[in-house]
Amino acid sequence: MSALPTTSREWHLVARPNGVPRPQDFALREVPVAQPGPGQILVRNLHLSVDPYMRGRMNDVKSYVPPFQLNQPMDGGAVGVVVAVGDDSPAGSFAVGDHVLHGLGWREYALLDAAHAVKVDAGNAPLSTYLGVLGMPGLTAYAGLLRVAEFHEGDTVFVSGAAGAVGSQVGQIARLKGAKRVIGSAGSDEKVQLLLDKYGFDAAFNYKSGPVAEQLKAAAPDGIDVYFDNVGGDHLEAAIGALNVHGRAALCGAIAQYNATEPAPGPRNLALAIGKRLTLRGLLVSDHNDLQQQFVEEVGGWIRDGKLHYEETVVEGIENNVEAFLGMLRGDNTGKMVVTLPAQAAIDN
Amino acid sequence: MSALPTTSREWHLVARPNGVPRPQDFALREVPVAQPGPGQILVRNLHLSVDPYMRGRMNDVKSYVPPFQLNQPMDGGAVGVVVAVGDDSPAGSFAVGDHVLHGLGWREYALLDAAHAVKVDAGNAPLSTYLGVLGMPGLTAYAGLLRVAEFHEGDTVFVSGAAGAVGSQVGQIARLKGAKRVIGSAGSDEKVQLLLDKYGFDAAFNYKSGPVAEQLKAAAPDGIDVYFDNVGGDHLEAAIGALNVHGRAALCGAIAQYNATEPAPGPRNLALAIGKRLTLRGLLVSDHNDLQQQFVEEVGGWIRDGKLHYEETVVEGIENNVEAFLGMLRGDNTGKMVVTLPAQAAIDN
Repeated sequence: MSALPTTSREWHLVARPNGVPRPQDFALREVPVAQPGPGQILVRNLHLSVDPYMRGRMNDVKSYVPPFQLNQPMDGGAVGVVVAVGDDSPAGSFAVGDHVLHGLGWREYALLDAAHAVKVDAGNAPLSTYLGVLGMPGLTAYAGLLRVAEFHEGDTVFVSGAAGAVGSQVGQIARLKGAKRVIGSAGSDEKVQLLLDKYGFDAAFNYKSGPVAEQLKAAAPDGIDVYFDNVGGDHLEAAIGALNVHGRAALCGAIAQYNATEPAPGPRNLALAIGKRLTLRGLLVSDHNDLQQQFVEEVGGWIRDGKLHYEETVVEGIENNVEAFLGMLRGDNTGKMVVTLPAQAAIDN
Repeated sequence: MSALPTTSREWHLVARPNGVPRPQDFALREVPVAQPGPGQILVRNLHLSVDPYMRGRMNDVKSYVPPFQLNQPMDGGAVGVVVAVGDDSPAGSFAVGDHVLHGLGWREYALLDAAHAVKVDAGNAPLSTYLGVLGMPGLTAYAGLLRVAEFHEGDTVFVSGAAGAVGSQVGQIARLKGAKRVIGSAGSDEKVQLLLDKYGFDAAFNYKSGPVAEQLKAAAPDGIDVYFDNVGGDHLEAAIGALNVHGRAALCGAIAQYNATEPAPGPRNLALAIGKRLTLRGLLVSDHNDLQQQFVEEVGGWIRDGKLHYEETVVEGIENNVEAFLGMLRGDNTGKMVVTLPAQAAIDN
């Protein structure tokens, strides 16, 4: 085994953002690395996830995940390589060199209980995909479309934020499962083109080019049956207007509102849900871990067969982790936004 | 058979209301009564229904029921007695003297196809109850709570407009089915007292006495699992705030908005539905006719056993039909609002 690191850099939240986070709300700090104790492993992170839900954790409010603490390391999904194992690590669990998925991102080295890590196979799929298409965003798309929105063959589906990690997968799963028509919105003409050319959407529009309601109506003249909401705001209002009788909306995200400092007005047309008997249902991936096995088999198969396309936007280096996060909130990414750290193969392997 | 009428009075919509309807938007007109043709019956109405959904039909917009036409008779639920039957009325259908439920209210005499009437038993329950507790509002409450809101034993339930025809029944069905706690809102202290004393609610508040969100929080310190919405507006926003994880809301009405001339802002906290995985689902009674038999048996049994209480607010005379409707929109009624016409027994029976 190579020499173990003595220090690691990690990102701390140092001020709670008011509105759009500023770089000075964060600090990259160098801290000592402890050796793994009994049952622990030390992991050198290779890929770090930045996800929309992290913005909510920067506020000091009760939510489904606890807020980040000031002057403490932030956390989030990460994939890395085990570089040290505690003395009495559980039998058959981890060895140095294993690749693992775990929850202590935003840092170079992670010390954690072995029970909180899951082994992943670098030979099966690129390691970064366990943060995206085969990871939490992928399961969100799969469970959200098929279970929460109760998608059925023949449905017309509209996805907002459709070039993102979740949205691009929702649209493709809908297509592969026999949707009548798949429509997506995105924030640039380049992304719209990608939806049409690479992800196989039937129609797509740039929501910055005109009112969402009008563009959706033009793209879905017969209305929609399912709406997968990553955006909230005027997207949700437009979708409520376009949903057909007994239509369903999976509420997955409201990125339009994450930086809001005032409560945003809700959809003014929500009363339409009565006459059209719409169902709006919130979605958290953690409710759907029972679908994990089925998800990995089905989506993994589509990827191997070249039927499901995915993109990643890779930012290099721990020092750019905050900028990657802010860029993701702005919509700079196409597909899953990942921060990749140097392999340092010569040191650790 | 007694002499048949030659004229009938009926209410026409003569102007589309803008905001709160005015008496001059309606006209009571005397029209000739035709004799029933083949397959038809002539009914003298005894009880006429006024319901919140009728306000929507006064606007010229596409909705789940078509709008009332100007200078044509309005319609709605009614119970009456058959006074004449067409020559070749279907065998075994109706005889003079039968009591029937049908859809041609807002008038003294109704001429209709026998196929559009349902026989009701005056010996089983008072005839007016077929417009209320055993009728459309009752089935709305029953299907809305048990199917749309997926009520389970042990749930805490909040009902808005709880002294109304639907709301009072929702609260009682919840209690009879094993709710942990039943909370209602109403628009006067007298109604609040009625909820506590007669309908067996565990807690109730007057929504005109203070902010709904604060009063609901005081009445439901542990949150709510089910919300049955008859009101919309700040009630819905307060309920979204109070709903527990995996809570469900049946969206039945939005009486707060029926007279609005501008789109009302939606709930500003709808994004909470994501983290709490709430389900909001619209409800129209016409989707649930398959529950009709089960509903009449179960609710009829509760009424016979004295377990389910109902109230009616009765307004006398066809000339007061509009005033009854406007009073119902204002919340003047307690329980089902019914317009009762003179029995005229000496003439027709």
